[in-house]
Amino acid sequence: MTEFIEGGVTAAKGFLAGGIHAGIRKNRSKRDLAMIFCKKRAAAAAVYTTNLVKGAPLEVTRRHISDGYARCILCNSGNANTCNENGIEIAEKSSELVGIALNIEPSDVIVASTGVIGQPLSTAPFERGIPLLKEALSEGKEGSAQAAEAIMTTDTVIKEVAVKSVIAEKEVVVGGIAKGSGMINPNMATMLVFVTTDAAITPEMLQKAVSEDVRDSFNMVTVDGDTSTNDMFVVMASGEAGNDMISAEGEAFEAFKRALSAVTKKLCKMLAGDGEGATKALISRVSGARTKEIARIAAKAVIGSALVKAAFFGADANWGRVLCALGYSGAGIDPDKIDVSFSSRAGSIDVCKNGRGVTFSEELAKTILSEKEITTEINLNDGTESAEAWGCDLTYDYVKINGDYRT
Amino acid sequence: MTEFIEGGVTAAKGFLAGGIHAGIRKNRSKRDLAMIFCKKRAAAAAVYTTNLVKGAPLEVTRRHISDGYARCILCNSGNANTCNENGIEIAEKSSELVGIALNIEPSDVIVASTGVIGQPLSTAPFERGIPLLKEALSEGKEGSAQAAEAIMTTDTVIKEVAVKSVIAEKEVVVGGIAKGSGMINPNMATMLVFVTTDAAITPEMLQKAVSEDVRDSFNMVTVDGDTSTNDMFVVMASGEAGNDMISAEGEAFEAFKRALSAVTKKLCKMLAGDGEGATKALISRVSGARTKEIARIAAKAVIGSALVKAAFFGADANWGRVLCALGYSGAGIDPDKIDVSFSSRAGSIDVCKNGRGVTFSEELAKTILSEKEITTEINLNDGTESAEAWGCDLTYDYVKINGDYRT
Repeated sequence: MTEFIEGGVTAAKGFLAGGIHAGIRKNRSKRDLAMIFCKKRAAAAAVYTTNLVKGAPLEVTRRHISDGYARCILCNSGNANTCNENGIEIAEKSSELVGIALNIEPSDVIVASTGVIGQPLSTAPFERGIPLLKEALSEGKEGSAQAAEAIMTTDTVIKEVAVKSVIAEKEVVVGGIAKGSGMINPNMATMLVFVTTDAAITPEMLQKAVSEDVRDSFNMVTVDGDTSTNDMFVVMASGEAGNDMISAEGEAFEAFKRALSAVTKKLCKMLAGDGEGATKALISRVSGARTKEIARIAAKAVIGSALVKAAFFGADANWGRVLCALGYSGAGIDPDKIDVSFSSRAGSIDVCKNGRGVTFSEELAKTILSEKEITTEINLNDGTESAEAWGCDLTYDYVKINGDYRT
Repeated sequence: MTEFIEGGVTAAKGFLAGGIHAGIRKNRSKRDLAMIFCKKRAAAAAVYTTNLVKGAPLEVTRRHISDGYARCILCNSGNANTCNENGIEIAEKSSELVGIALNIEPSDVIVASTGVIGQPLSTAPFERGIPLLKEALSEGKEGSAQAAEAIMTTDTVIKEVAVKSVIAEKEVVVGGIAKGSGMINPNMATMLVFVTTDAAITPEMLQKAVSEDVRDSFNMVTVDGDTSTNDMFVVMASGEAGNDMISAEGEAFEAFKRALSAVTKKLCKMLAGDGEGATKALISRVSGARTKEIARIAAKAVIGSALVKAAFFGADANWGRVLCALGYSGAGIDPDKIDVSFSSRAGSIDVCKNGRGVTFSEELAKTILSEKEITTEINLNDGTESAEAWGCDLTYDYVKINGDYRT
């Protein structure tokens, strides 16, 4: 049993969070520095972008998390701290400043940044901001909301989710916040996602849960096919729930993974639906695949096609583009077996059977495709595996937002 | 010496071409059926899309060309003849109709189609159109222009190129037409490109020339990352130039490849510059790569990034996105060695050295990026190989064109 509850990263026991304006962004009404703090050393695990061009914070975080534990996450928006001469220096100095302010080891600080690549950055906003941030920390849901706002870039809504679940008779909470709207095509990692839990779990099992989860959650989201330089997905576990320490596979580990998956999949949907310029959230669900990997590749190709995305923007049931994307996806599919249908709140319509078009009502198709969330159901009729991927339509506003992002 | 001359597929000796309105499109003022005819059996070679969903004409053409010779190319626009119940039947029937009209073997006919996928199609327009097309055939440049127009879909300009060159003291002509504007990300094949030459060359050496050429020509073009189901690149060689038959590698073969490459690379530029909605032609030139393959992958990734494309639309010198694309490209690059500059008719500007931003004049950058053709020069400083890729910016009009393509 997994139940959605209010809040985000402060829903689990043991965590405080906050967000303030530190002056990295010019707009003084936009928070730009977030903190998530655990009252005790928490087991910590993470996955990162596979982009060879990496933000400096990732290198520092990887080092700090290598012992499996952390106390605090510090994340700024407005500047990616990537391709900067003094990037590592800034990331290390911020960790030190957090260490001094909170009286913890700098090596227990996870640092993250998001924003424009290759723009000059100084330590001044961190020097000014971190003491303010310490004052802003709260165990309440406003702490999580502030942090969720402070990590936003082109996002239009804050993204936070929490669930409660029962693991070995103890109530456990998992909650998270995320940001990401463009440059989204995670690959073995994700945009920025910070998740907290009060479950007791060893760093090794936590890493295993994170690495497995990401394959069917954030790696299945795409907004524009561009894998960011700063992607990071971090989970911290305080152990405050009082369950027996999860230190091996088994029922408790599976229950934890289910709770984690409920949070991450919901965040995926929120990220995709708030993709840059998006007017519609798109889901592609592939079933009947020979292998799980084929299902994943096929689902991701459909959601990633610029032509499919543009057709959905125009509410045009151009299913040939779905077939085209499946064909070039690299997934081993048999075109002559494929069935396709489109569905939304307004109904469902079959458009392709055995790789051939079927006669359908263009009027009904238009009605179905005019909804805010549309699912493309693809049956490969070739096996029993399935996968789901999340994305959004391609709109004038995506072009507008990205035609002049730096100014 | 390779010299550009007027004309397209009728520039080489031995070829006639024409284009008419056969009624596949509703708009009667738009030609929709093209023919290229050789007075004698010509050596023929082709490469096709790697998309697993393939247009029916590709299967028929592959069969017809398997003996290495052909007489005629028939190509319609307005319907891709893909994912149709009777696709093969229509492609075979059209070949027969051409055979009857021109008194040639149906198995010497190359068929191709382009347009919407999965729309019903009948043989009626071919029955009506092919006799008209026979009457329209011309050796003059108007024949090539008509054919080039008849294969257009969302293209805004016809695309034809011809060159003359000398092979073993004989003047040889190579000329071609192409269409393609969206769903363009060729992979071991291309959009529709038909090239004719009067060079004497065996089918085997012609195939070798075609297969080698495409790696650095059409495979290096992308408009939207979508590999079409109907891509085809065909070359027919009449032998009328009177050169000694090219039947092995050597000087004459190299000279032929250079002439072919002059035609195909020019067509690449024309295709990219006329990409759907494009306001700017983009070139990415990668040098200093360890291997040719790394150079190709890196150049293609930059030109394919939605974020890079949108930044160019906005004349925004957001070079961080170039670094980001190089980083996720899969090419083995060292981020800390990369230099980037932008250039156009208006000048050149360095924006990144050793993977770090350099101070530059935003004003000059804006001027350079406001031109119609912009080159991104990338030096990986890691070897001696280089490659070039062609693309276009991502604009409001791309979204508009593709939001409602079928109607």
